[in-house]
This record gives sequence, C-alpha cells and structure tokens, in this order.
Amino acid sequence: MVAISALRHRLYHFLFDQRTRTGRRFEALCGLFALLSVIVIFIESGIGTTYHLTFDEWHAFMLLEVGFTLMFTLEYLLRVCCWPQPARYVFSFWGFIDLATILPLYVILLWPEIGVEYLFAWRAMRVIRVLRILKLLRLMPALNSLWSAIVNSRHQLILFYAFIGIVMVVAGALMYGIEGPVNGFTTLSTSVYWAIVTVTTVGYGDITPHTAPGRTVASILILIGYSVIAIPTGIITAQMTSEFQKRRHERVCPHCKQRDHDPKARYCNGCGTALPRELGA
Amino acid sequence: MVAISALRHRLYHFLFDQRTRTGRRFEALCGLFALLSVIVIFIESGIGTTYHLTFDEWHAFMLLEVGFTLMFTLEYLLRVCCWPQPARYVFSFWGFIDLATILPLYVILLWPEIGVEYLFAWRAMRVIRVLRILKLLRLMPALNSLWSAIVNSRHQLILFYAFIGIVMVVAGALMYGIEGPVNGFTTLSTSVYWAIVTVTTVGYGDITPHTAPGRTVASILILIGYSVIAIPTGIITAQMTSEFQKRRHERVCPHCKQRDHDPKARYCNGCGTALPRELGA
Amino acid sequence: MVAISALRHRLYHFLFDQRTRTGRRFEALCGLFALLSVIVIFIESGIGTTYHLTFDEWHAFMLLEVGFTLMFTLEYLLRVCCWPQPARYVFSFWGFIDLATILPLYVILLWPEIGVEYLFAWRAMRVIRVLRILKLLRLMPALNSLWSAIVNSRHQLILFYAFIGIVMVVAGALMYGIEGPVNGFTTLSTSVYWAIVTVTTVGYGDITPHTAPGRTVASILILIGYSVIAIPTGIITAQMTSEFQKRRHERVCPHCKQRDHDPKARYCNGCGTALPRELGA
Amino acid sequence: MVAISALRHRLYHFLFDQRTRTGRRFEALCGLFALLSVIVIFIESGIGTTYHLTFDEWHAFMLLEVGFTLMFTLEYLLRVCCWPQPARYVFSFWGFIDLATILPLYVILLWPEIGVEYLFAWRAMRVIRVLRILKLLRLMPALNSLWSAIVNSRHQLILFYAFIGIVMVVAGALMYGIEGPVNGFTTLSTSVYWAIVTVTTVGYGDITPHTAPGRTVASILILIGYSVIAIPTGIITAQMTSEFQKRRHERVCPHCKQRDHDPKARYCNGCGTALPRELGA
Repeated sequence: MVAISALRHRLYHFLFDQRTRTGRRFEALCGLFALLSVIVIFIESGIGTTYHLTFDEWHAFMLLEVGFTLMFTLEYLLRVCCWPQPARYVFSFWGFIDLATILPLYVILLWPEIGVEYLFAWRAMRVIRVLRILKLLRLMPALNSLWSAIVNSRHQLILFYAFIGIVMVVAGALMYGIEGPVNGFTTLSTSVYWAIVTVTTVGYGDITPHTAPGRTVASILILIGYSVIAIPTGIITAQMTSEFQKRRHERVCPHCKQRDHDPKARYCNGCGTALPRELGA
Repeated sequence: MVAISALRHRLYHFLFDQRTRTGRRFEALCGLFALLSVIVIFIESGIGTTYHLTFDEWHAFMLLEVGFTLMFTLEYLLRVCCWPQPARYVFSFWGFIDLATILPLYVILLWPEIGVEYLFAWRAMRVIRVLRILKLLRLMPALNSLWSAIVNSRHQLILFYAFIGIVMVVAGALMYGIEGPVNGFTTLSTSVYWAIVTVTTVGYGDITPHTAPGRTVASILILIGYSVIAIPTGIITAQMTSEFQKRRHERVCPHCKQRDHDPKARYCNGCGTALPRELGA
Repeated sequence: MVAISALRHRLYHFLFDQRTRTGRRFEALCGLFALLSVIVIFIESGIGTTYHLTFDEWHAFMLLEVGFTLMFTLEYLLRVCCWPQPARYVFSFWGFIDLATILPLYVILLWPEIGVEYLFAWRAMRVIRVLRILKLLRLMPALNSLWSAIVNSRHQLILFYAFIGIVMVVAGALMYGIEGPVNGFTTLSTSVYWAIVTVTTVGYGDITPHTAPGRTVASILILIGYSVIAIPTGIITAQMTSEFQKRRHERVCPHCKQRDHDPKARYCNGCGTALPRELGA
Repeated sequence: MVAISALRHRLYHFLFDQRTRTGRRFEALCGLFALLSVIVIFIESGIGTTYHLTFDEWHAFMLLEVGFTLMFTLEYLLRVCCWPQPARYVFSFWGFIDLATILPLYVILLWPEIGVEYLFAWRAMRVIRVLRILKLLRLMPALNSLWSAIVNSRHQLILFYAFIGIVMVVAGALMYGIEGPVNGFTTLSTSVYWAIVTVTTVGYGDITPHTAPGRTVASILILIGYSVIAIPTGIITAQMTSEFQKRRHERVCPHCKQRDHDPKARYCNGCGTALPRELGA
C-alpha cells in the first residue's frame, strides 16, 4: 500500500511536476499531440466539406482519432491515478477538459448511428475534440499574469461591461424604434446585436441603418461609444503593466536583497549572486 | 403635519438613502425588477416577430407588464412623496425616466387602438419601456468617476468632436464630388455618414468607393483619420486614470494623515487605523 | 493716405484681431454663417436627390446662396483691404479657402449652362461651397497643439506612414498573387486598397479572400499588421501629451516665477498674482 | 590582386557605405528606381485589366522593364563584387530580394511561353517584381528601433499570439458547432477565419451569425476578445517607447558625459561640445 503510494508520488513528480525537467517535457509532449490532433480534425473538416470522404480516407482519419483518443485516455488515467488529490483534479477545469475531449470517440463506438442521424451531434463531437487545443495553455505559465490582471481588476471590468451592456441595450432599442423591422432591425435583440457589432467597430454590414435619422443616431453612437468601449482594454493593459512591474519587484537577490532586476537577468547586478528563476516566466 | 413630515423623512432614509443598508437593498430590488422587466420585453419582441402571438401568450405578457408597471408606479409615487424636495426629483433625469417608463401601459389603457393603428407607436412604447434598464445605473456609483472624467475634459472633448465633425464633412464632400451618386454617394449627408463609418473603422460596406481616385482618397483618409480619431479615447482614458489617482490620494488616514492607500485597503498600512470607506467605490 | 492706413489698421483691430473682444465676436459670426450656409447646402443636396426640386424651392435655395455669397464676398474684401500685408493673406491657406468658396455662384452667373451640361461641375461646386465649414477651424486656436504635435513628430510619422505603405504594397501584391482577379483582386492597386481597408480593420467586405491560402495569409496579415498600424496613433497621442505638459510648464507666474499651474487657474497658487491667459486655450 | 582588392574596398566605401555621403546617395538612387519600377508595374497592371494592352503599349512597358532589370542586375553584381564577404550578402535577406526581383525578366526571356500558358506564373512574376519596393526599407535605418522592439519583446509576443491563436480556434469551433454550414460556417478553418476577422474588428460581413444563440456568443466574443487582442499592440508600443528612451540615454556628451539630449540636438546643452550623430536616426 505504501509502495503504491510511493510509486504514485514518484510518477507524479516524474510526469506532472512542472519543476522537474521530465515533467515539463511530458507536458510539452501532451501539448504537441493535442496540437497534432487538432490539425488532423481541421484537415478532416476541410476535406469532408469539399469532397465526400472516400471510405479509405474516412478509415485513415478514424484510425488517427482512435490513436489520439487512446493516448489522451492514458494521460487522463495517469493523471487521475498519480494526482495527490484525484478528486480535485477530476472536478477541476483541466479535469473536465481532459475527460470531455476523449469522450466523443467512445460515444460513437457505443452509439454508432448518432453521427448519421443527428448532424448537430456530429458537429458537436468535432467541436468538443477541438477543445484539446486548450491543453496547450498548460505550457504557458506566464499567462498567469494576464489571468491575475483580469482577476485583480474584476470589479472594474464587471462594472464597465455592465455599463456597456446597458448602453448597448438603450442604443439598440433606440435604433429599433427609429429604423424598425423594415430596415432589418427585426427584434429588440437583433438591434442590440447590431449596436454591439457597430460600437466595437466590427461593422459586418448585415444590418445597417437606411433612414436619415437612423444614420444620424448611428453616427453619434459610433463616435461617442467608440471612446467609451476602449476603457476595459485600457483597464486590462494598465493592470498587466503593473502586474509585470510587481513581479519584477518581487524578485529579490537572496544575498544583497536588491530588487528590480531585469527579467532576463540570471545574476544579481549588485553582488553577482545567482538569482532565483522568475515565477511564471 | 409634523408626523407626516417625520414619516416621509424616515421612509426616505429607509428606502432611498444609499448610506443605509435598507436603502441599498431597495435600490438593488428596483434594479432587479427593471432587469427582469426588460428581459420580458426582449422575449416578447423576439417571439412576436418569429410567430404571431396567440391570445394566451399575449395575455401572459400583458399581465406581466401590468404587474411591472404597478410596481414601478408605486416606486415612483413613493419617491415623489418621500423625496426631501419632490420637485427636484420630478424634474431630474431620473424623475423623467421613472415616469416615462410607466406611461406606455396607461396610454394603451386610455387609447387602446393606438398600437393597432400606428405601428410606430407600438414600437415606440416598447423602446420607452426598455429605458427601464437605465435604473440599473443607480446601482453603479463608481461610474461617477467616468462621468466626472468626461465633465472635466469637456472642453477638449467638444473641441475634438467638433474638429472630427469638420474633417468628416470635408471628407464626405470630397468623396461625394469624386464618386458621385452613381457609386452610392447619393447626397452630401450620405457621404458624411460614409466618412464617419469609414474613419472609425466600422466599415459596414453598404457604401464603398468604386473608382480608382475614390479608393485612393479613401485609403489616405483611413490611414490619417485613424490616427486622429483615437484622440478623444485617449483624453477620456487619461482623465479617468488621473481621476482614479486623485480619488486614491484624497483618502487620508484619520490618525497618521498618510495618503495613497490601496483602493481595497480597509486599514491604514502605517498605523493600523480603520480607513473611511472610499467614495463611489 | 495716412487716414486710410489708420482706418485700415483700426478696422483690422476691430474685426480681425483675436486679442480684442470684437475681433473674436466677428470671427464667431463668420463661423456661424459658414455653419448655416453648409447646413443649407446639405438640406438642398438631400431634398434635390429625393424629390426633384420645384422651381419655388430652387428659387429659395438660390436666394439663400446669393445672400451667403454676398456676405462672404464682403468678408473676403474686408480681409484683403484691412490685412497688414494683403498679399500674405491672399496667398495663405485661408485666403484660398475664403476665395474659392465664394467663386461657385459667380461661375454659375457667368456661365449658367455649366451645371446643366456637366453633372460633375454641379457636384464640384457643391463640394467647394461645403469647404466653408473650414472657416470654423479659425475658432479653435487650441488645435494648434494638435498641429504642432503633428509637426514635431513629422519625421517619425512620415517614416511610419512610408513603412506602412511598403507593408501594404507587399501585402497587396501577395494577395493579388494568391487570390487573383477571379476573387475580386483584379489589379495590384485594388489589392493594395484591400490591404489598407483590411489592416486598418475597416473591412468593408467588398473584396474578401475566398481561397484557403488567401484566408490564411489574410488572417496573419490582420493579426500582425494590427499591432503595427497603431504606432502613428501612439506617436501623435504621446506627442500631444508632452505638448500639453510643455504648454503648462511654459506658463510662468510673473511674480514668483512658479511654473506648472493648472490649465484653468487664473491666479498663481503660490503668490496670488494674476496669471497670463494661456496661449491657444 | 591587391589592386583589385583595394578597388573593391574603395568601391564598397564609395557606393555602399552608409557612413559616406556617396553611399547614402547611391542607396537613395537605388530606392528611387525601385519606387519608379513599382509604380510602372502598378500602372501596367491597372491598364492591362481595364483594356487589353495594344502591342505598342506592351512594347513600352517591356522596354521599361528591361531597363529597370538591367539597372538592378548591375546593382546586384556590384554588391556581390564589392561586398567584404560576398557569400554573406548573397545568402542574406537583401541578397535574396535583390536577386529574386531581377529574375522574372530572365525567366520570360528563357521560357517565353510561361506567361501565356500559366496565368498564375504571369501574376507571380508581377508579384515578385513588386517586392522591389522592399529596397526602400534600406533607406530607413530608424526602423531598427521597431525591429529591436519586436525582437526584445519576442517572448511576450509569441506567447500572446499563441494565446490569441488558441482563443480563436476555440471561438471558431464553438461558432461552427452553433451556426453550422447552413449559415456559412462551412468548415472549422472557415470558422476560425471568421473568428479572427471578427475579434480584430475587421468584420468583412462575408460570414455572419444568423441564429440568436450564434449572435449572442458572437457578441460576447467580440466584447471580451476585443479587450485582449490589443495586448500585442500595447507590448510593441511600450517596448518602442522604452527603446527610444534608451537610445536617447545612450547618447553621451563626449566632453561632460551628460546624457538625455534632445534627439534633434547637435550640441551638448551643458558644455556646447558637438554631439555624435545619433544611431539609426
């Protein structure tokens, strides 16, 4: 029993601990396979729309998919077995992603007609498998800066998105009243969709104002809304900058306690002592 | 008489004073109902366009609307009665919004044929009712920062919007001369609308230059206008940043008079005294 | 002779000197009439396209135009007469604008068939008259900040616009090669127009890539170009900020020589001496 | 042998050394001819699509092209001969560009039917010749700032572009699942192309969501993605600013060792000593 526990512990350190070289390599390998798998799904989707797949082609893609699924199933089982607290992994974001992206194949094997019967199910399976790309995020610990920038400014961000939401609803309702269903503003929600597409300057052009008052209101809305909608962008950027500076400030020389080292510095420029590796870099 | 006055005063503090817990809760309740009411209007608008409403569905939406209107009427009356200076409330922005958004139902009850006779009136009523969403803004005192940033930079903003307006008129007139009605630039105002839609990078594509000189002028206009149109965005962002810093600087420790506390700090990091709650946070 | 010179000098100070109250008021009056005149032209253009103008309507617009033209002719003559160095005014930017915007009517009076014979000439005259809106710029001395920001960073701006131009030419040529005339990329210049419209995120959608390699190249171009095209915006904004700070720094208290006064301050906050009016504010 | 080496050395200094006046002038001359050559190609492309070229016109363009090609061939040979290490030039970026842009004519002379037989080859040759415009980049040493800003922030940039790539793949897959081929989202790669075009706010409108859930997801994607996609822009701008400051800081007065001189300063403002010419300015 102790032996198994020790083995699990050792395996965890060998395969999943990001502080060991083997752990980082195993993660990179999983990421590489996730990337390859997603590229295969994209090619399959591209060919499958242009030509009808021949049986041989379909066979080849099926085989590849079986291979990838087996690999990711193995990875999932290893993670469940080795994790210090398996339940925590299983119910975490990564646990769900790792499980969900191996399920489609098993669903097809258990219920082979589903893809033929329901076109939506066929598409949904492809979409779920594409989520494997998210595994690559594990290779980017530096994104923690972005994440903590968003978390730290969540009050401001929620406030601004709520404010933008209210402005969009009012602007959409106004245009719905002015232009009306004749000019494409069929429902209130369509008008709000138009307002979001317009003020963010996406401007598809599928719905556009056609009357003179509608165009006037739209012009004013664009000019003013445009100056306000960039505020969340500004908040995230400012928070990220201060996050980077804080991180830099937190890296202290263990010998002379000097701060503010260059992010790429390996040795303290005051006393020459080796600096600790930066967190999340 | 005094008793009524005292009751009014007490009711005001109980229901509307944002410094009391009950006041904040009552405001949140009003906001919640405003949100629910707007969601119902959106659903009604969505269903009403896709299918024709059955009598039962119409009945249900009507009942919901009667309920919401009664509630908001009660809120309006309470505000008029309790407010220290009722006239000031009635003629304020919020007084107009609160009154206008309860009127549509009473108009329909008094003049039931209006919605059937005039499609525009029917739409206008929906639009007015959607304005209830603005009540949610009362829950966001922190938007005062944005508002005072805009007020403080109003001279610069008016100047820049006037400048952008002149540039747009000249650009629109130029393209009207070059492209002409054949290519969609039918009137001068249409061309100015095109110029605004283009320089803000919305780019619907409903009106586009088709001739070589028109495309050349449009390209130059885009490249140069693009660098100028972001100036109001920059002004508002810069003003907001300085507003936030000022607010932070204004929060002084009552004991040791230290400034520049973290916005989320509850206690002075110099002497441990409890800090006053930040204004508008 | 001396009397005339003195009269000219006095008239100049009375009507055109921006440091006197009457001068500022006369400028504002000219601006107001320019604005009114342009609004009339816009209304004429709008009505003239929707309905055919009746003779009475055409008569009314003609009368208004004659009135405006006479007024602006008087303004032009006064300026030519009173200006200290008339030649310098006549050959300046404002001299050209003031002259050009009164010419269309005289051209029509001298050669009445031109508008009937050449549609383009008719449009050109309208466009030229719209340029009256530029007179409003005289009322905005604070735009000097923007102008000097652009002039000060002209080396960087020219460099960047040239760089962006080269990138656009290469990107356009690449897409011309990949997509070809079949997909709308008919000539090299059309492709460059597409590249500018795309990278500035205007995205009309009149020309779009249709092949898989074209879409891939377009996606990469958008993502990378997008990060580079904002640089001129950044340069102008940064220069304007430093311009504002310099201007603030240049305002020195005449008594205690203190600098860095608030732009709205009228008195020195150090010694209470009245501060000189800020330049171009 | 020594004489030839000396001649090569002298020619190199005379023609290509950017520190000599003749070197800068020769570079400017080459740039000018590159620009002229590209303008000719654009005119040829524009005329060739609108009308069929007459034999005389085709002859004129051919002659011009022969002239330009001979000139650039001479330039290439001179560079190969004079360069201190010819191999390093030949295998450098500029070596490839200089060689590739003279090849199309020789290919046509050797194999005259290629342009007639393969339309794609005809277009490819035009595209390759347009790359001559890149020679102008040699005239812009100040772009080194931009280049080193990009190189210095390459870790962050790669990270963010990879992150944006993952977000785009997930967003595209999601929309592919929701909207499906019926609404234009035919394949997974088309959906990712849509996601990139949308989140960067280009918004062509060739593919747009048509269902209510699709529009809701698209709206959320736009609002959130919009705040994240500007981060690389921010990184490059910030890096460029610090690059400019560093460059300024690096310019030291040789006499009094003062730093931080104005970029346009020619003499030290502390002691009047002539300052060294700024690098890459």
